[in-house]
Amino acid sequence: MTGPRSPVTVEDVERARDRIDDVVHRTPLDTSRTFAEMSGAASVGLKLENVQRTGSFKIRGAYNKMAQLSPEERETGVIASSAGNHAQGVALAGDLLDVDTTIVVPEVTPAAKIDATRGYGAEVVVEGDIYERSYEYALERAEVSGRTFVHPFDDEAIIAGQGTIGFELLEQFPELDTVLVAIGGGGLISGVGTVLNAHDRDVRIVGVQPEGAAHAKPSLEAGEIRELSDVDTVAEGIADTRMLSTTFAVAREVVDDVVAVDDREIATAVALLAERAKTVAESAGAAPLAALLSHELDVAGEHVAVLVSGGNVNLTEHADLTRTGLAELGRYVDVRLAIEGWPTTLGAVMETVEDRGAELDRLERADRTAVDHPNRTPVTIGLEGSGPDHLREVLAALSEMQGVTIVERTPDVS
Amino acid sequence: MTGPRSPVTVEDVERARDRIDDVVHRTPLDTSRTFAEMSGAASVGLKLENVQRTGSFKIRGAYNKMAQLSPEERETGVIASSAGNHAQGVALAGDLLDVDTTIVVPEVTPAAKIDATRGYGAEVVVEGDIYERSYEYALERAEVSGRTFVHPFDDEAIIAGQGTIGFELLEQFPELDTVLVAIGGGGLISGVGTVLNAHDRDVRIVGVQPEGAAHAKPSLEAGEIRELSDVDTVAEGIADTRMLSTTFAVAREVVDDVVAVDDREIATAVALLAERAKTVAESAGAAPLAALLSHELDVAGEHVAVLVSGGNVNLTEHADLTRTGLAELGRYVDVRLAIEGWPTTLGAVMETVEDRGAELDRLERADRTAVDHPNRTPVTIGLEGSGPDHLREVLAALSEMQGVTIVERTPDVS
Repeated sequence: MTGPRSPVTVEDVERARDRIDDVVHRTPLDTSRTFAEMSGAASVGLKLENVQRTGSFKIRGAYNKMAQLSPEERETGVIASSAGNHAQGVALAGDLLDVDTTIVVPEVTPAAKIDATRGYGAEVVVEGDIYERSYEYALERAEVSGRTFVHPFDDEAIIAGQGTIGFELLEQFPELDTVLVAIGGGGLISGVGTVLNAHDRDVRIVGVQPEGAAHAKPSLEAGEIRELSDVDTVAEGIADTRMLSTTFAVAREVVDDVVAVDDREIATAVALLAERAKTVAESAGAAPLAALLSHELDVAGEHVAVLVSGGNVNLTEHADLTRTGLAELGRYVDVRLAIEGWPTTLGAVMETVEDRGAELDRLERADRTAVDHPNRTPVTIGLEGSGPDHLREVLAALSEMQGVTIVERTPDVS
Repeated sequence: MTGPRSPVTVEDVERARDRIDDVVHRTPLDTSRTFAEMSGAASVGLKLENVQRTGSFKIRGAYNKMAQLSPEERETGVIASSAGNHAQGVALAGDLLDVDTTIVVPEVTPAAKIDATRGYGAEVVVEGDIYERSYEYALERAEVSGRTFVHPFDDEAIIAGQGTIGFELLEQFPELDTVLVAIGGGGLISGVGTVLNAHDRDVRIVGVQPEGAAHAKPSLEAGEIRELSDVDTVAEGIADTRMLSTTFAVAREVVDDVVAVDDREIATAVALLAERAKTVAESAGAAPLAALLSHELDVAGEHVAVLVSGGNVNLTEHADLTRTGLAELGRYVDVRLAIEGWPTTLGAVMETVEDRGAELDRLERADRTAVDHPNRTPVTIGLEGSGPDHLREVLAALSEMQGVTIVERTPDVS
């Protein structure tokens, strides 16, 4: 049970649910036999907040916060800083509640994300070379303008809004033993954990962080907030340096364990979600699946919920991630060949690839000379296969061909 | 109402539902505001058979067929030919019903698909340079071995199995006015149409075909089966040359209209399904959405169901399709630049791209000389932007740079 020290109670989340019920989607829980088999769990349910309105769970907290503003506060409007999902959550909540909304975004924000936020009627202000500057600027402007600052996580109302996912999980997956939730600033896990911790059944609440932004475990172990000097991860949505006082106060009550996953595991999870669950997740949204499959966690025989928190990713970036994931799985390889008797031999290479049932992805006459083979033509091909054994077999067949030398393979599947 | 001439009745589909109910997923209906707005429909529901077991609807028909085999037939086993979804449907049904299964696949079948089919315990036989040869070989082998041939579509039990989707649609989307269903051999639309046509409400049943395999409209108009001499489409799953007698007999009773879409529209639909609905569809599965968005069809104010029939696509192929779709939407462009003062100028190009909020996808020092600019370095970059106006703005900024000449852009967004 959540102790008296937690600033958010399950009753707060119940009230949040009543406020947001007509506005947010009750997102599906997709059960996955594949991921159960891969992890040894009895069953795995993917809670698909990537199909939530705005493409992430953030609308839950933003709407719950903004629905509680006084008439005067609504009139004056709100301000927030975000380059990502929080921006769209606040913007849509503003649109639905008729609250004037300003979002401060850092200079590097892609035009597509700015357009999406503007599409909900928010004013977007570009300010700051990094997110921290945008955040400070938004706080200053809130002070001057009297607008209410809507924090991305460190706010009781935001936490309670995100927590509504917990009630849906209990309804959709009553046999739940363990839930895996990503931690950035900790708003999501604080809310969801508050609900699941108050439940009769003992549900284990496991936080997931990227190795390059793994502040939660040291903080919870130390009993005080630890801040990272910098972060480095593909999972932008959870690339925070620290929790803050409210999320830390809740998290220390409700979080049972924290697992870190590396960026390659995250890319693999993005690829597997696309291939097996046919769902598009952003890196942060795939991190909990990465944790499930990392075998850092014993889930044998358990019923496990994996919270896929968002799906806002550029399609070109998603494509890069899935290719990286396939390479990690030993199912994709880039091979540099030195070819004698071009282009006839290249035709024969294509035939070998097709005969062996591999898929040819990229094909380039390489622009760097194959130094050891000055009389040969350098060619780079990208191959997708069914697994490491299959790709090894294809490469063995290529290396036995007359006039073909394998100069390099990435990753090295030999 | 389905006339007396149809070989499949709604009662057949009801019995099929009872047979398969415990085995198949009741797939979700995802409502999409975005696609409603884009098409002018009152509402759009995506029926997600891409998250069906085996990644497509095919398990429904295969299981319904094989569950009705006599004990002797089960003992002898079945045989089928397919390079795609039908193979996995038959293989899984065989696994569940403990029926020995042989699948004949053509030589070009990717190893990954063969592995997936073998994964369900089927024996895979590679025979035939094209699918038609595999089909004939499977028929011959059925004759010799006594195995039951499981046709991919032209079979009452297969059609009735696919039709069970119709009952789910009526439950999940009772206000339904129009349903869009892809036609390959016609099994899916025959089954679904049989149910919806028997319903009290008048539901319009619209078939969708790729322009490169558009046999259904001429056949239905002529009142007899017309066969194409060849097909050419990215949508392999529906690249059939004709209906056959059973599907034609049902389809002529239940299909109200047929729309053709081109491959670029299909690629765009694949991209939009990934970006907006966060779902991974194969080309055939995206064709009905392409039809909805083609404005060939008037759906103003209607409630429209779009049947996303499958999601079995290689991730590298999916990435290619989404990039093509983005290019069609004016949101992706490949640009060949001729650069003076490499690499300093290239650094400045990167800065311009970032300042304008575009995403840099590919970057290559091109291997073909920029003939008009022999003293410059050819570089190809791929850019993702928020829309045609945005990309035009980025290209204008690049073309004004000192030392940068735009030699070519694909597609031409100027």
